[in-house]
Amino acid sequence: MYSSGRGKSSEKMKKSVFITGANRGIGLGLVKEFLKNDNVSIIIAGTRNLETSEALLSLGDDTRLHFVEIDLEKDETIKAAFRKTQIDDLVGDAGLDLLINNAGIHVPLDVNAPIDREAARQTYEVNVIGTLSVIQVFKPLLLHAVSNNGWAHIINISSIMASMVHTFGPFNRHWCGYSMSKAAVNMMTRTLSLDFMKDKIGVTAISPGWVKTDMGGDEAPTTVEESASGLAMFTMELGEEQNGKYYNYDSTPIDW
Amino acid sequence: MYSSGRGKSSEKMKKSVFITGANRGIGLGLVKEFLKNDNVSIIIAGTRNLETSEALLSLGDDTRLHFVEIDLEKDETIKAAFRKTQIDDLVGDAGLDLLINNAGIHVPLDVNAPIDREAARQTYEVNVIGTLSVIQVFKPLLLHAVSNNGWAHIINISSIMASMVHTFGPFNRHWCGYSMSKAAVNMMTRTLSLDFMKDKIGVTAISPGWVKTDMGGDEAPTTVEESASGLAMFTMELGEEQNGKYYNYDSTPIDW
Repeated sequence: MYSSGRGKSSEKMKKSVFITGANRGIGLGLVKEFLKNDNVSIIIAGTRNLETSEALLSLGDDTRLHFVEIDLEKDETIKAAFRKTQIDDLVGDAGLDLLINNAGIHVPLDVNAPIDREAARQTYEVNVIGTLSVIQVFKPLLLHAVSNNGWAHIINISSIMASMVHTFGPFNRHWCGYSMSKAAVNMMTRTLSLDFMKDKIGVTAISPGWVKTDMGGDEAPTTVEESASGLAMFTMELGEEQNGKYYNYDSTPIDW
Repeated sequence: MYSSGRGKSSEKMKKSVFITGANRGIGLGLVKEFLKNDNVSIIIAGTRNLETSEALLSLGDDTRLHFVEIDLEKDETIKAAFRKTQIDDLVGDAGLDLLINNAGIHVPLDVNAPIDREAARQTYEVNVIGTLSVIQVFKPLLLHAVSNNGWAHIINISSIMASMVHTFGPFNRHWCGYSMSKAAVNMMTRTLSLDFMKDKIGVTAISPGWVKTDMGGDEAPTTVEESASGLAMFTMELGEEQNGKYYNYDSTPIDW
């Protein structure tokens, strides 16, 4: 699948990666993991606000690491991030091998309270419409990578809470809006995996697990390091076999 | 489950039904089917605009049938529809046994075109947030029915296009926004089925099949009458066993 690599054979398997929501939690963990991996040629870390992304900026002494601002609610920032990524100093004509849609929010929604449309709207706007918008804008860079390497991959960071089979409760009531948005992300993954098959762009949904982050809370069983190291390893191996499927960060499949 | 029926035993199994989107397609077909069924005590047909609902209004010579305006994008119409439904001339203290969330829209969304947030937003606003809002507002009437009859049921009209397992393509590209919204409806069904279990309110997702309607088109294999008659029969039988599950209109289960 990667037989038509560009340039020297030693660089053939190297991959360029773009990650949204890279300023904290799993996104930040992924950047750290990719920096450890010599097969990653370039890492573009997207964050909503660079000024408040100290932890991310402090990783910046590696020449492979670059920062761009991207806000999934604002189209102009997505387009600006695309333009910055495609310049020659970054991926240029080589294109982008991996697009990791990690940015997401959780706005609590109590289904037993009066109507609160805004909570469900905001969650969907970022997690689903924002993610789809990033994919729509960045697709030309993925197609460049396909021309060079024969394949490119979109990773949608989903959640175990997106699984219909594994839904649990009722204590997760306030997570209804989030679960609905992540189920929609899984469906986006399914439909795009069919739509983009002819382009040789794979699309895979991956749950990071229940992780000790601002969103997951302290009682979560998995550390950011465990999740991010599993995710980083798995995303580097993705190909046609994983297209349109749903996995845990450790590469075990999850029932829809 | 229905042992604590109110009033005379001959009326014990009679059910009151509220249907949204009752002016055409499957909603209108459901109203016609329920009118044929003597076990339906009252049918409240919700429609966005009564003035343009001639086909529905023409069914109005049955004393069990009542009309209310309800627009899933406008909270005040949902609250007004609730107030009209709870008056003594309609369900009164008897409450509402079945709430059928049938209203829905499809705004085409081309994932290979430039960003079109509005298409995805509108579809989600009606199909998901609107449906959830109706449930939130109407829940007190369902609880009345539970007090009287021991159980009440919410039916979310889903779609075969909500199934992750049965997703097909790539020709359904323009349906991405719709599929995502219906996957979210399925997740809403899953989470509410857990949240409302203590209240003895069931929640079930049912696909009407691919039906010859304005949305389904002429090439659809199933007629409105076939789908509506199956749906009407099935909804009258729903209980705890079907809570939190996903079925075809003919009562066969669908894989998520």
